[in-house]
This record gives sequence, C-alpha cells and structure tokens, in this order.
Amino acid sequence: MVEPATDTKSAAKVVPLLKDELDIVIPTIRNLDFLEMWRPFFEPYHLIIVQDGDPSKIIKVPEGFDYELYNRNDINKILGPKASCISFKDSACRCFGYMVSKKKYIFTIDDDCFVAKDPSGKAINALEQHIKNILSPSTPFFFNTLYDPYRDGADFVRGYPFSLREGVPTAVSHGLWLNIPDYDAPTQLVKPLERNTRYVDAVLTIPKGTLFPMCGMNLCFDRDLIGPAMYFGLMGDGQPIGRYDDMWAGWCTKVICDHLGLGVKTGLPYIYHSKASNPFVNLKKEYKGIFWQEEIIPFFQAATLSKDSTTVQKCYIELSKQVKEKLGKVDPYFDKLADAMVTWIEAWDELNPSGASAKATNGKA
Amino acid sequence: MVEPATDTKSAAKVVPLLKDELDIVIPTIRNLDFLEMWRPFFEPYHLIIVQDGDPSKIIKVPEGFDYELYNRNDINKILGPKASCISFKDSACRCFGYMVSKKKYIFTIDDDCFVAKDPSGKAINALEQHIKNILSPSTPFFFNTLYDPYRDGADFVRGYPFSLREGVPTAVSHGLWLNIPDYDAPTQLVKPLERNTRYVDAVLTIPKGTLFPMCGMNLCFDRDLIGPAMYFGLMGDGQPIGRYDDMWAGWCTKVICDHLGLGVKTGLPYIYHSKASNPFVNLKKEYKGIFWQEEIIPFFQAATLSKDSTTVQKCYIELSKQVKEKLGKVDPYFDKLADAMVTWIEAWDELNPSGASAKATNGKA
Repeated sequence: MVEPATDTKSAAKVVPLLKDELDIVIPTIRNLDFLEMWRPFFEPYHLIIVQDGDPSKIIKVPEGFDYELYNRNDINKILGPKASCISFKDSACRCFGYMVSKKKYIFTIDDDCFVAKDPSGKAINALEQHIKNILSPSTPFFFNTLYDPYRDGADFVRGYPFSLREGVPTAVSHGLWLNIPDYDAPTQLVKPLERNTRYVDAVLTIPKGTLFPMCGMNLCFDRDLIGPAMYFGLMGDGQPIGRYDDMWAGWCTKVICDHLGLGVKTGLPYIYHSKASNPFVNLKKEYKGIFWQEEIIPFFQAATLSKDSTTVQKCYIELSKQVKEKLGKVDPYFDKLADAMVTWIEAWDELNPSGASAKATNGKA
Repeated sequence: MVEPATDTKSAAKVVPLLKDELDIVIPTIRNLDFLEMWRPFFEPYHLIIVQDGDPSKIIKVPEGFDYELYNRNDINKILGPKASCISFKDSACRCFGYMVSKKKYIFTIDDDCFVAKDPSGKAINALEQHIKNILSPSTPFFFNTLYDPYRDGADFVRGYPFSLREGVPTAVSHGLWLNIPDYDAPTQLVKPLERNTRYVDAVLTIPKGTLFPMCGMNLCFDRDLIGPAMYFGLMGDGQPIGRYDDMWAGWCTKVICDHLGLGVKTGLPYIYHSKASNPFVNLKKEYKGIFWQEEIIPFFQAATLSKDSTTVQKCYIELSKQVKEKLGKVDPYFDKLADAMVTWIEAWDELNPSGASAKATNGKA
C-alpha cells in the first residue's frame, strides 16, 4: 500500500529553481487546503487559480501563498465573446491560466494531488523534478535504453549516434501518479481496487511520431515553446464530452512538438493521487470519447503540418483546419471544437501580443 | 555501489517456464565458471555454447548443465562455404547458436554477466522475467505512460484506444545491466568510473518507427517470429569493425518487427555486468562504426519493406538489397555484409528446412 508523505515541512529547504519564471496553475471548485502539504515546495512560486463553477463561491487559499484567482466572471470580462473557448464546469478551464500567465514555464496540478514519497520515504518535490526535466534536452529521434541520458549517473549507450547527443529543447514534462492511477471509467469499474504502487525511477523522451495519453494532473511545460498548443478544448457544461481535455491537448501538442523539433518527456515526478473520481459519472462524460478516440488517434497519427507552419500558432491553426475537415465528419462537435481552437489562438495572441510574432521556434519566422 | 547477488542457491525453486522450448546461447572463449551463479535459474534449460577463437582449447562447463558446444571447426563442418557469414574472434559468432537451435525461444547472455539483485536484495531470475516479457503482448502503436500494461498492478491508462489493447505478439525482450553500463569507447574513456546503480522497475514497448541500440549481452527473442533477422553480421577477424554486431541485428530486427507488426520490449530484467572491456581496444574496433552509424541509422529510419515481404526471410533479403544499394556507397564493407546477409538466410533455411516456408507471421504466405 502506498501512502502520501505526511511530513513535508521538514523537507530540506532548497533554492527554488526558476522562481520568477514559473507559474503554478490550479483549477478548482473548493478551498485549497491541499496546498498545506505542498507549502515547502510551492510557496516561493506564484499561483494562478482558475475557479470553476459558481463564481459567487469564495475559495480559501492558505495564508502565505502569492496568487491571483480568476472565476467565470473574470474570464468573461477579460476575454469577452472569446470566453466561449474556455470550458465551464470542467477542469479544462485551467488553460485560461496558461493564457494569462506572463511566465516562461507553467506547472499545473489538480487539487486532489498530494506529495508522494520515493522508495526511501523521502517527500518528492515534484516541481523540482519537472524543472530538471524541462531544463535538460530531450532525445526524440532515437531511443536510449538507459532512459534520460542527461540524468546523474546515466549517459547515452553504445550505438547512440553522436550527432543526436545534443538533443532538442524539452517543451513538456509529463509526471505520473502513485496510488490512484489515471484510468478511464471502464477500467475503474473493472478494477476498483487497483492502486499504483510501482515507483519507476525513470524519465524518458516519447519518441518522435509516437502519441501518448497526456494527463493534466501533474504537468509542466514551456509556455514560450508550446503554450498556444496547450488548449484543453471544449468540455463539460453544454458539451457532449468530458475528461478528454488533457488528451486533446496532448495529441495536438505532440504533433506540433514533432513538427517543430521539440521534446516531450514522461516519467518522474510522481504525485500522490488521493481519490478516485466516480466511475459512473466518468463513464457518462467519457463514453463518446471512447468511441471517438478510435478515429481521433489515427487522425493525429497521420497528421502532417506544412513547412510554412513555423510557429506554434501557425501549426495550431493549420491543425484546426484539418480537425474541421477530417473529424467534422465524425461528429458536428468537432466543427465547433475546430472553431474554438481558432478563437483560443486569437485570445492567446490578444493577451500575449509580443509573443504572437516572437514565438517562432526555428528562427525562420 | 551495486553488487552482484552472492547467494543464488537459496533462491526459491520455481517451475522453469518454457523448459523444453528455450535454448540459452552463450558465446565464449573461456571456462564457463560464471554458470555456477546462474545454476538455480539456468540448470533446467539446454545450453548452446559457441566457442570463439582457438578450437583446440578446451572449454570447461560446470557439472550438471545440459549443453552442446560448437567451435570453429564444427561451424565450418556444418555450414561448409556458408560458414563465411559467421564471424570469428568476435562474440558475433553467437548467432550460429540461434541457427542450430531447434527451439522456439532463445536467451543469450555474455559470460561476464552475473546475477543482479533487485532493490530488496533478492537475486533476479533474469530468464524468468524475459519469458514473462515475451509471453505477454507488446504495444507499439501508442505509448502507455504506466509502461507495460500487462504487468501485475498496471493497465492501460485513460485515453488509450480500446482497439489497441490486445497488443501484438512480442518478438524481442531486451534486458539491461547494473554496474558496468554498455557504453561506447569514447564514453568509457570519459567516464571510466561511471556505474549504473539505478534500478528502473519498468518494461516498455519501443514504439513503432523508433530505432534503439540493441545490446546482445542480455537478450531474449522468439526464434519462430524473428530468428532469421537476428544475424550479428561480419565482425572481428578480417573485418574493419567490431562491437556493432548486436547493433546491426537490432536495427534490422526493429525494421522487420515494425513491418510485420511484432513488438520489441526493453527494460527489466537486469543482469550484473561485472567488468568493463578495455576502452582502447574498443575504440579500435568501434571507430569506423562511430562514423558509419551516422549514415546507417538514417538509412534504417527511412527503410520501408514491400507488401510482398511477408516472412522474416523475405524481409531480410529485401533489406540486404537495400543495404547493398544504399550503404555500399558508404564503404565496400557493406557490399560484403549484404552478401553475408543473403548467405545467412540460405544457411538458416538449410538448417531449418520446415521453417523456411512455415514462418509467415501474418498467415498470408
């Protein structure tokens, strides 16, 4: 049985990395007591809290944290009609936080995620590990059998081409979960008691051309490199689907990272995921997605972007057209989603005016 | 500091899996005292020992093991002129053992590999883990973030397409090494003291379309599914290159597995690799390979096979033609290697007559 860390206060104080260059984005509908356990690790950073649901509700944030909070009224006010691209009554609303941040890096975490322990019993500073992942290169073009070659005590193995050892910039660090695994509703129903107790001490680059199921529970990314692709779609209130927000962002992000020569890492750090969501509720949210993903994934696997798409924004707009053309046939929902993808980019560029042109990643634009 | 297991005799006796369906292939130039430590795990199995170097030397095998041994004279006698495809004075000679085996599965291990311990201190039965890997499916078409979904306590995560959850047959299980990592000569020279102490408790499928550096030190495969692709090339005596035997086999194997819809797993089990080879000697063997791999790897990354190549043999012959055509320009060595690839298949089919036509993996041939 795995258990969360109960004593994080005594965790050795470390110099907080990227203190002024990273925002922590938290979507929530409740008081943020979970931050108490994270205090030694998160307190130096700025928080962006995206309050979902009833805007009149007061969300309590523990003393001492530096934060800004946006509820639905704020989102509507800031984005005007473009607020339609931000989901309501779904944690997909978190992507509004990515848009209003002015920092280079984002770490996002769910409010039911606690500090996990490594096999030695030490509290895991998840954010620190994400920062290590994202500040070291990725290796998407060839697989290294000893995993991340940039970690202490590791390197490239025999047979790894030297020309590829410089790696590419890392855009995304995808962390994992001990205790409650991130299963879909059918798997939750079939295995209600399964807990993830296996601590895999690895970080690895997801190879170019390979898609993966990106979970938004414990995720870090470089806003400058990939931010505009981190749109969590239309989910929840008024939409036919939920629980595919992070998946959608992951598919789009991976295709664009592959096109732009950026890396995506997965593995460490673990957080402790405390409670399983209701599988019956989840099934209702997911069931269309379970059908649709059988067509969406081949679509993304086959998607290619043109040479003219030299910025994330251009890539994303090109992808939105392909979504409309190819997935529109699957369900009218994808027409609406494709339009929302465009609105999202418009809103992003409005809130990030200098970034709109500065975000070319290959120096050609 | 990692240390090998010193007490394997007390390891709980397990029912040996695939006892009559697996051969252990060991290339060697010395007495096989290392088998003493492996006795509890290997004794139930049949060994195929391929003696390299001076055939008049007597190789001692500890009492109680069931084995057949082939020296160079035997190889020449069995293969006649086709013996030219089997390397001499290089562990690449091991692939002769794959060819003469009559079993479905092969496990091959180097004679400087000992039993490793898991983090709890328990001696690792490497062969048992390989068998588990190879008897469970692979998932090359989509990445599962909790690694091998078929292991106890794991499953497919949310967002993994249900249509892909059956997986595909696993053709190869690639194991890793604690203590001395499998580094090339330049890395050995730069990091003479680096030891691998990180036990990563994971098995994962290498995605379709991704190449990897396959090490022959601790490797298991399904002979029926992929055997004829496991040719370790022309290395050692009379050849301009060494230490690329397993790499060559790995590139060819992966391309063919991808084409035939077969899986390749890497990760567990670990063995304890006891001693680093001489980096100066290695540099001499490797230096051409270090140049050449910069052209070989893009060649294999771009290689595609025709629909008519429905058996491993047909795939391998098609690949040999592409090697001749495209890599022949890099160095005349590849002309010779391409010819040896054809000879290897001829020799394989001669020794495995029924298999030559029966080995279609997709039921179409």
